[in-house]
Amino acid sequence: MGSNRFGEIFCITTWGESHGPAIGVVIDGCPAGLKLDVSMIQQDLYRRRPGRNPHTSPRQETDELQILSGVFEGVSTGAPISLIIYNVDVDSSKYEPIRDLYRPGHANYTYEQKWGHFDYRGGGRASARETACRVAAGAIAKQFLAHFGITLFAELKQDDQFQSRLEAAVAEGDSIGGVVELRSSSLPVGLGEPVYEKIEAKLAKAMLSLPASKGVEFGSGFRAAEMLGSEHNDLFTMGESGDISFASNHAGGTLGGITSGLPLVLRVAFKPTSSIKKVQQTLSRGKEKKELSLPEGSRHDPCVALRAPPIVEAMAALVLADALLLNRCAKI
Amino acid sequence: MGSNRFGEIFCITTWGESHGPAIGVVIDGCPAGLKLDVSMIQQDLYRRRPGRNPHTSPRQETDELQILSGVFEGVSTGAPISLIIYNVDVDSSKYEPIRDLYRPGHANYTYEQKWGHFDYRGGGRASARETACRVAAGAIAKQFLAHFGITLFAELKQDDQFQSRLEAAVAEGDSIGGVVELRSSSLPVGLGEPVYEKIEAKLAKAMLSLPASKGVEFGSGFRAAEMLGSEHNDLFTMGESGDISFASNHAGGTLGGITSGLPLVLRVAFKPTSSIKKVQQTLSRGKEKKELSLPEGSRHDPCVALRAPPIVEAMAALVLADALLLNRCAKI
Amino acid sequence: MGSNRFGEIFCITTWGESHGPAIGVVIDGCPAGLKLDVSMIQQDLYRRRPGRNPHTSPRQETDELQILSGVFEGVSTGAPISLIIYNVDVDSSKYEPIRDLYRPGHANYTYEQKWGHFDYRGGGRASARETACRVAAGAIAKQFLAHFGITLFAELKQDDQFQSRLEAAVAEGDSIGGVVELRSSSLPVGLGEPVYEKIEAKLAKAMLSLPASKGVEFGSGFRAAEMLGSEHNDLFTMGESGDISFASNHAGGTLGGITSGLPLVLRVAFKPTSSIKKVQQTLSRGKEKKELSLPEGSRHDPCVALRAPPIVEAMAALVLADALLLNRCAKI
Amino acid sequence: MGSNRFGEIFCITTWGESHGPAIGVVIDGCPAGLKLDVSMIQQDLYRRRPGRNPHTSPRQETDELQILSGVFEGVSTGAPISLIIYNVDVDSSKYEPIRDLYRPGHANYTYEQKWGHFDYRGGGRASARETACRVAAGAIAKQFLAHFGITLFAELKQDDQFQSRLEAAVAEGDSIGGVVELRSSSLPVGLGEPVYEKIEAKLAKAMLSLPASKGVEFGSGFRAAEMLGSEHNDLFTMGESGDISFASNHAGGTLGGITSGLPLVLRVAFKPTSSIKKVQQTLSRGKEKKELSLPEGSRHDPCVALRAPPIVEAMAALVLADALLLNRCAKI
Repeated sequence: MGSNRFGEIFCITTWGESHGPAIGVVIDGCPAGLKLDVSMIQQDLYRRRPGRNPHTSPRQETDELQILSGVFEGVSTGAPISLIIYNVDVDSSKYEPIRDLYRPGHANYTYEQKWGHFDYRGGGRASARETACRVAAGAIAKQFLAHFGITLFAELKQDDQFQSRLEAAVAEGDSIGGVVELRSSSLPVGLGEPVYEKIEAKLAKAMLSLPASKGVEFGSGFRAAEMLGSEHNDLFTMGESGDISFASNHAGGTLGGITSGLPLVLRVAFKPTSSIKKVQQTLSRGKEKKELSLPEGSRHDPCVALRAPPIVEAMAALVLADALLLNRCAKI
Repeated sequence: MGSNRFGEIFCITTWGESHGPAIGVVIDGCPAGLKLDVSMIQQDLYRRRPGRNPHTSPRQETDELQILSGVFEGVSTGAPISLIIYNVDVDSSKYEPIRDLYRPGHANYTYEQKWGHFDYRGGGRASARETACRVAAGAIAKQFLAHFGITLFAELKQDDQFQSRLEAAVAEGDSIGGVVELRSSSLPVGLGEPVYEKIEAKLAKAMLSLPASKGVEFGSGFRAAEMLGSEHNDLFTMGESGDISFASNHAGGTLGGITSGLPLVLRVAFKPTSSIKKVQQTLSRGKEKKELSLPEGSRHDPCVALRAPPIVEAMAALVLADALLLNRCAKI
Repeated sequence: MGSNRFGEIFCITTWGESHGPAIGVVIDGCPAGLKLDVSMIQQDLYRRRPGRNPHTSPRQETDELQILSGVFEGVSTGAPISLIIYNVDVDSSKYEPIRDLYRPGHANYTYEQKWGHFDYRGGGRASARETACRVAAGAIAKQFLAHFGITLFAELKQDDQFQSRLEAAVAEGDSIGGVVELRSSSLPVGLGEPVYEKIEAKLAKAMLSLPASKGVEFGSGFRAAEMLGSEHNDLFTMGESGDISFASNHAGGTLGGITSGLPLVLRVAFKPTSSIKKVQQTLSRGKEKKELSLPEGSRHDPCVALRAPPIVEAMAALVLADALLLNRCAKI
Repeated sequence: MGSNRFGEIFCITTWGESHGPAIGVVIDGCPAGLKLDVSMIQQDLYRRRPGRNPHTSPRQETDELQILSGVFEGVSTGAPISLIIYNVDVDSSKYEPIRDLYRPGHANYTYEQKWGHFDYRGGGRASARETACRVAAGAIAKQFLAHFGITLFAELKQDDQFQSRLEAAVAEGDSIGGVVELRSSSLPVGLGEPVYEKIEAKLAKAMLSLPASKGVEFGSGFRAAEMLGSEHNDLFTMGESGDISFASNHAGGTLGGITSGLPLVLRVAFKPTSSIKKVQQTLSRGKEKKELSLPEGSRHDPCVALRAPPIVEAMAALVLADALLLNRCAKI
């Protein structure tokens, strides 16, 4: 078990609270012999970092990564890789005025009910801060995948109105949601395992473990429910190289839960950020009706999906790295 | 690991191919002392069974369940519960004519690539036949949940045109997809674990492990991406009983990946059945272009989603039973 | 979890009670492409079977194995392999007279305390009957290992007095213990994982999961505690083939928890059979002092260790098969 | 998986090399609400620390522990507890002269074969340094157990000649082995799970995962192999409090792999320290015969078993904490 753990062979454990001294991740099962480019990890952390544009949280997270183990002379040794990021610019005092209030859309109510305590400071383990560790570990998984020619790319789906909706929300002290789409390069055929470890099943778990995510779909996804079988089926054709290929990719890169060789395509829905500047009605722990206004200077993104692409890439990379290793055991 | 295994504490392992002598499931971790009503298991199997209406596969699956272990005098003993269902009415000979053809939308290509063999008969482990075992195990999980007052109900979402679309597809030898929605009764607060074992993450994995499923969403789901935070946040209110409640349930029964006490609401998208009577272009294993016509008398559903509700219930029941047990370890 | 499950990649789940209709095992993770000789499985079952010599239990276990899934045309497919053995010659009525007595050395007291019920018939899951499933699964693991040139051999250590001690015990209606030693052929270097998955750690768990086992040791084992470092260290030497070898094998085939290439050597201590014909003082569930005499015609071995060698081989085979697969993920 | 992970519910992951910047452990699954006394953790670390007496390694390990997460106001929160110990007094330069030599009894040969690299400095993950993390995590597990009235005590078994043998070994630049015995207070009945998760199986894995351990036995252990059933069986008797008790404890506190209520008794055999001052014959990586003399000032214990008691206690505590939590799921 271990609910802060993800993956089977290529397996990570993350720890740390947004308002504690540090956060970190231990990667257990990264194969030996992987040359690691630390600057690429740092770069993904930078992509995820708040404060990069006018509409992400201004919290200054320097996110300076330290590697404490598992890497010797730039190469993975087979030992667990321990990464640590110290929290800086942490100021819990701003939360004092709202310390006893249940925050709509937040985990503080359910955490209190489950564990019997109430950490009024940032979101603890529920904070998006935790995703920095996913990104760091995912950046290593990406380098592992790159060794096999696999790349991943995620981006926020933005229609024409996205920017104006975002600005309107900011102006109102409100927030909006968004959908992030991930696409991979062509994949090796055979990743994923039946029945319960289908590649979509693993990816779905990965994506729904992200804070604020509310849905995931593959290929045509929910639209497939409205299609005919004769439309949705990706017909087999001969590729240019004389290999078997497909005439379309409605399935999003899988067949029977196993990668088919086509690019993986998935989309993740993110709800609007729960923390908004707008005043909201709520209850206190004492069950009194209260108004919740976020403290002056508290820092939140008007759209969590803006920062989600590197996190979605990271989770997909972790799943694929794991599946790729596991696939080595498929045949005698 | 074990890719035919699902769950941590309340844990199942399924086995068996659609064209082998039998299929079965071993439930390891069902607590002792659960009174079991076998007829309720049989009833769920009956709900899943094909041949019940004009538009499901006419295969005669009698689905007579035998309990081989783990139950003594009608009560679970704590030992693994082994259930077996013998396959009857299996006729593999019909598949002879298409034994060398890759079937669009099917797993036979990816299975062959992964394991190096090709079982031309039914779908092997990829067959929907396997879901009978999920239903049987899920029926036991449901009885466990019922002990704690939890009930689940899934149904196919049918708009006005569903029936006519279905009939048109049948007439054309084609198939259609569908969306199944699951709702629970009120749940205990506190089920699910951060960070990677959020209740949505576990449920998402469960649902995307189902054959033909292509997406899952919770509460407002993908629509949440278009909402404002002030709309989506479920405000805390005082319930009639003096308990904390919520003014809405956009989140679908969770907060921070932990059940909030509200009913769970999720939807699963199923693609149209891959096997269709319509002729399709495909390739043979020898890479020749071929036409694929399903053998006369082969049996397929024009809409897999029709039979999915008891399977979706079963998977949700397995996840919730597991989460409920795990939650016993949350506090000292 | 799943306490009836063993192994990670090559993973088994066993089920069934000694007095139920059948016992069985599901092997999940046997690589595809393994040619299986069923008669070899049956042969190991026969080695384990009671009634083969005057001093093993006369219960007639025919142990006819059926393969229900996972094997197609004599070759493993990658799908779970389900094996079933029907129980025959089961007569629970003999246990009626002692149904309320706690049996010294048996699990019925602890099982009752843990699960709240009391199965007075054979030992349920605690019965040695369960080990037939280990032997069947282990026989498949052995065939997997044989593919890589690895063989295992276990035997009961018998000093000059063993036979006379055994006969004396039989004459007195008593029982004796024994030590089983396992030796492998040379092994590939590199099996086992630091830190908690050392090959000895996995093997120790495997051996101490056997009914009646009370200890395990590797190489010089407990005697190593009395040796000097200069005696115990196995010095590196050049082997005949120009490869690195060792001057001795005090370590029993491992270094730092990883196989060194030398044969594995371990010994398992088995306590004397708990069920004896001699009258014993005990308590009833009502806490009354009672005398326990085993029912006329009840069947027990005077020395469980006599039948243990194929079971010890099976458990070692399962551990090594798993370690061999896992080792494929060690390097990039 | 994750080979640096131990435990299921109460689950730890350790990381760090003896010659890296730090070592650490993440405890995932410690229930919320446990009041933690940090000084008790530090005290166990101090017991394990070298340099405490004339015959343990003089390496100065200050072992100052920092808690980075999971504890708020002195109480566990349910979030992962991350502990870090910085390595000080690390001097790898002494190892330069022997950097290419295979060291008898050490893991550097097998590690090199498995992962393809060679860390000539301390033992990396194979170093006894790693056990500091086990002790720290185990100290928290002990506090959890203490909450339920369970205590553990381990000590080195020393016969009359131990001290003189130790001194003789030191004088010769040699080392000796030893046996550590662990005893618990009375335990709750019911810890441990059949079949593969018997309490002895879990403990055996725990103990054989310790560096230098070569065997484990429970209760009468290997001596049980020489006993009669009528001797070894622990007869049921009425205890003073009117509860069911036992006339003896040959089984070492278990029946059928489940704790019986009696104290747990086990012994672990440790081989003599592999690193000795005495000159040894060995090979270089280039397969040349070489003499290995440990560098002047390198630090090693003449008997690793001297420092093992707190480590054995820690591992037992981790197993029992896990079993105690898991047992909450035994009954409905």
